[in-house]
Formats: sequence, structure tokens, C-alpha cells
Amino acid sequence: MGATTTYLTGIQTSGEPHIGNYIGAIKPALAAAGAHETLYFLADYHSLNSVKDPAKLRHDIRAVASTWLACGLDPQRTILYRQSSIPEVFELSVILANVTPKGLMNRAHAYKAARDRNAAAGVEDLDAGVNMGLFNYPILMAADILIMETDYVPVGRDQAQHIEYAADIAQSFNHLYGDTYRFPIPEGDFPQGDASVLPGTDGQKMSKSYDNHIPLFLPENKLKKLVRRIPTDSTPVEEPKDPDSSVPFQLLAQFASAEHTASVRARLEAGGMGWGELKNELFDTLNTEFAPMRARYDELMSPDSDLDAILEDGARRARERARRVLAQVRSAVGMA
Amino acid sequence: MGATTTYLTGIQTSGEPHIGNYIGAIKPALAAAGAHETLYFLADYHSLNSVKDPAKLRHDIRAVASTWLACGLDPQRTILYRQSSIPEVFELSVILANVTPKGLMNRAHAYKAARDRNAAAGVEDLDAGVNMGLFNYPILMAADILIMETDYVPVGRDQAQHIEYAADIAQSFNHLYGDTYRFPIPEGDFPQGDASVLPGTDGQKMSKSYDNHIPLFLPENKLKKLVRRIPTDSTPVEEPKDPDSSVPFQLLAQFASAEHTASVRARLEAGGMGWGELKNELFDTLNTEFAPMRARYDELMSPDSDLDAILEDGARRARERARRVLAQVRSAVGMA
Repeated sequence: MGATTTYLTGIQTSGEPHIGNYIGAIKPALAAAGAHETLYFLADYHSLNSVKDPAKLRHDIRAVASTWLACGLDPQRTILYRQSSIPEVFELSVILANVTPKGLMNRAHAYKAARDRNAAAGVEDLDAGVNMGLFNYPILMAADILIMETDYVPVGRDQAQHIEYAADIAQSFNHLYGDTYRFPIPEGDFPQGDASVLPGTDGQKMSKSYDNHIPLFLPENKLKKLVRRIPTDSTPVEEPKDPDSSVPFQLLAQFASAEHTASVRARLEAGGMGWGELKNELFDTLNTEFAPMRARYDELMSPDSDLDAILEDGARRARERARRVLAQVRSAVGMA
Repeated sequence: MGATTTYLTGIQTSGEPHIGNYIGAIKPALAAAGAHETLYFLADYHSLNSVKDPAKLRHDIRAVASTWLACGLDPQRTILYRQSSIPEVFELSVILANVTPKGLMNRAHAYKAARDRNAAAGVEDLDAGVNMGLFNYPILMAADILIMETDYVPVGRDQAQHIEYAADIAQSFNHLYGDTYRFPIPEGDFPQGDASVLPGTDGQKMSKSYDNHIPLFLPENKLKKLVRRIPTDSTPVEEPKDPDSSVPFQLLAQFASAEHTASVRARLEAGGMGWGELKNELFDTLNTEFAPMRARYDELMSPDSDLDAILEDGARRARERARRVLAQVRSAVGMA
């Protein structure tokens, strides 16, 4: 365990990110980065569990990597790598399985949720449709975390169990082999207060599964159309409006400056500002925020971009750590 | 899939082999080798599940490799490698988990046996003491088999389920990704008739768990002592004896020539040959068979032997295959 404190963030690679992910995950993660030794990995093998379409998987991985880079991830200051570039993760997961009680996996949230869905649907075999990728997910995630000798994992409270499991598995390993090698015990680094939850175009929480999301880096004309289609009531232009029950206003408030937000609020409450004008303000605000990122994103997504080189460089740096840790682990268990 | 037919044999590395393993497994396997493309691997990560003592694991792996080489495995004609030298196996096992239904693992013999033991002992939690290494064992074994594009696995009938599982998992992969890459479907190559079962020193089947085994390559004086200690009845030298109820005779019959065996049988049945003399014959026979192998074994087990070089050469050749197969698999699933 080095003197530096290591932060590791896993990035899901299934599906292209939307502006809700930007506000809720990407922006706060990037704001926190740099103060410590920070690693980001694209959890591409976790996605394989749900994405069986190779072309889509390939596209999504590039899209998500490009998104984080376009949003400001600095691959010089932090290490960005694909999970699939670190073979040491998979060997470690095989080693860790031997010190992981099956009972721990039986109680994993994602697995239990799948069984509950079967029970609710009246399916007799509660394991129906459950594959071993899902069941083993917590071990693979423990390997992701432990191979980098991670101290902290910045995650939401809903991910707390994964960190607890990684800590349990590390402790179980240390108990057996601690005379020779000890994993640092990882901890969750949970956000203070509630994370910002962005409303989707229908007013519910923005989520791809509700189909109410605004994709990041939508071309300008499509973004304009999508913003215009956000449902609003038929209050006439001249009448006063309640900003806090208005989806376009809530979205604007997340991206506009405090001054700008206050002035729009005042104009809505006073009457004289119509929904169309509000949507124009929202579009302009989003477009101003995202246009430069979109340009960088489009650049990264072109086939001859430096994306692969960036990911290869990250993989090279991450593997140096992984090789060093795995060599010690192999020696501790008697494999080398 | 190449034009050649590939045979793959997995070798357990927990504990030093005894003469029962030699007759039942090593000798027939080596007799069959060479007619096809043959690979042998030391299943060292499977042993990690039961062996948590690093020094013992390290010793056992060397001992088992040295045993097979001393018994005549020709590393020029066949490929001998450690499972732990092929990182592609572990990555493939992570990929295969995503196409493996959990229900398949629930029905695996070794896992069910562990649950049955808990049930018989009145343990309420049937998964008590079961770790994920045991539960995932069939996936890791499928990866061992499929990474080498194996056609046939020479195993006993008691191992048939593992081959069925590897075939099921291969089919499930081929169903999803077969347009791009297909695994050959592996089959078991089961021995004709009953395998020779050697009695242990107490007359039961020879097994380390009964502590009735004769280790291969015991030093000459220890082998002599162990043979002398085989229990016999008190029939006087001059009286006729029943060879077929005599453990030393049954052991002798496995190693002596047909002529030699017939002459000893005749002398026992006629009377005039005592148990002590029979044991001397047995010791001489075993010692003649194993002395040259023991010398080679001792040579291989010395720290500066060519064992590591042999295993490294095998690993290099095996990894060439593994790398080629994994590259195709990664591309098929969309990871590359």
C-alpha cells in the first residue's frame, strides 16, 4: 500500500450517457478528480452481461469513453482504462472466488432483485433467466477494486453493498494470506446530501428506461427539436407561471448561472414570458454548455481519433499497477 | 478449428500421486498420448480451492509435474503447461459466465454433494462452507477446455458432467455469436471397460483419503518398509495360500510380467512361499519399475532442474493457441 490515497471509479458502458448522468455522475466525479491518485475504468465486461450485440457494445464503449473525455476527464492527470485491457483483473477474480463464501453472493442485491422479479411473475424457478455473469458480478467488481489497491470508491449509496463485499473479500484474503500480502480495505466515498436528480422531459426522474432523457451531444438541430417537444400546459404568455412546477425551468436551473436563473424565475412569475421563450432560453443554455464538448466528442468518435491511443496509454499505466499487485497475490497464495 | 484432432487432459495438483494413480490414470493417459495433438495441463487454480497452504501448493504442483514427466510424458511430443500460466483462461471464464445459466451450476455434482453433506449433518444453511471457487469450478473447467479448441477430453465416467457442461456452454456461446466464431463442441473420451483399481495396503481401493496408499517414488528403504508392513494373515510358510485374497499378490500382478505373476501364483497355491518372500518379490518388482523414474523425479525436483524450463516452454506453446482463440472470442462478443 503506497503513501498516496487511491480513488477508483467504475463507469458503466451500456448505452450513451444523457444530461442526467452528466449532472448526477460525470460532473461531480470530475470535480473531485485530481486531488488524489484517481483511476477511472470502463466496466466493459460488466456490460457484456446485458449487451449481447457486439456492434452496440463496441459503439457504447467508445461513446462512453469519448463522453467522459469530452466532459473534461484529463487522461494525463488521471488514468482512464478499459477493464478488458487488464487481464490481471480476471485472474484475480478466479483467486478471490476461492475466498468468497457462496452465501455472500446469495444475498447480493442485483441477484435478489432478479429472483424477486421471477417470484412476482409467478415463475417457479427463481433462478430462471439468471446467468453466472450476474451472479459473479460482485466478485468481478471486487477484483476491479482490489487489483488497483483502491482506498476509496466514489459511489452512490445504492452501490454501498458492492464496496462492502469487496471489503469482506479483501479481509477474507488477508486473514488467510496476510503474512505475505494484504489488500488495503476499500471504502465507499459517498456523496454528501442528495445527488442532483434531473427531471426527464415528462417530469419523472430522467432515465433511459423511461425514454424521457436528453442525450448528451445531440446535434444542435435535434437538441432544439427535443427541447421544443417538452410538454407544457396552455397558460397564455402574459399570465404568471410557477417556475418550480415547470420541467424546462428545472432543467435550466441546473445549467444556467444563478443570476440567469433568478432573472428567468422573476420573468415567469411576473407573467409575460411564454413557454416557447423559456424553451429557447433552455436550448441556448444547453447548447452553450455542450457545444464545445460535443465538438470534442465528435472528434473523438471519428475512426482516426486519438481515442484508442488514450485508452492504450491508460491501460499501460493501469497494468503496471495490476501486474505488481497480481505478482504479490500469486506469490502469497503459492501460485508463484 | 484446425484439421487436427485435439485431446486435452487436466491433471489435479493436490497431493503427490501414488501407485494407484499411476496404474489408473497416468499410465493409460501416456499410452494414449501422441496419436493426436495432445495437451496436458496442471489444474493448479482448481487446487487453490482446497489447498490454502502456499508452500504445500507450490510443492504439489512441482511434484505432480515432475511425476508425469518422470513417468514418461514427452514434452516435445505433447504440450505440458500450468493452467495458471494461461491468463486467457481466466478472461474466457469471465466471458463464458455471461452465457452460462445459473441453473446449470445449481445442478453440478460437486456443489450438490457439498449441499448433501450439509443436509446429512443437519446444517440448516446448505451453502455453509461452500465457496465460489467450488461453485464456479465448472465454468473455469469449460474455459480450460474451450480455450484450446479441444475436441476430446479423456476422462472417467464420473467426470462426464464437466464435459457436458463445457459442451452446453460452448453451444450457448455459438448460438449467440456463431456467425463470427464457433467453439468446437468437446466430447468426453471415456475408457473402455473398467479402469484398473489398485487395492491399498489395507485391501480397500487405494486412496490418499484412506491413508492406505503407496506413494510413487518413495525412497527405496521407505518403500521396502511400507511393503513389509502390508498386513497378512498368519498362514505358515509351507501351507497353500489364496493369491486372489492377498493384497501383495494383487499389487504384484499389476506390475509383474504375466509369466512372473503366474509363477508366483503357482508357488503360493502349492505352499512353500511365505508372505515375507511374496513381499520381497513385490518390493523388487515395484523397485525395478520405479527406480529409473524415481531417479528422474528426484532430478526434476531439485531446485536447479529443467522443470521450470519445460513448463515455460509448454506455457509458451499453449499460450499461442490460447491467444489466437481469445482474440477471436473477444472480437465475436464486441470487446475488440
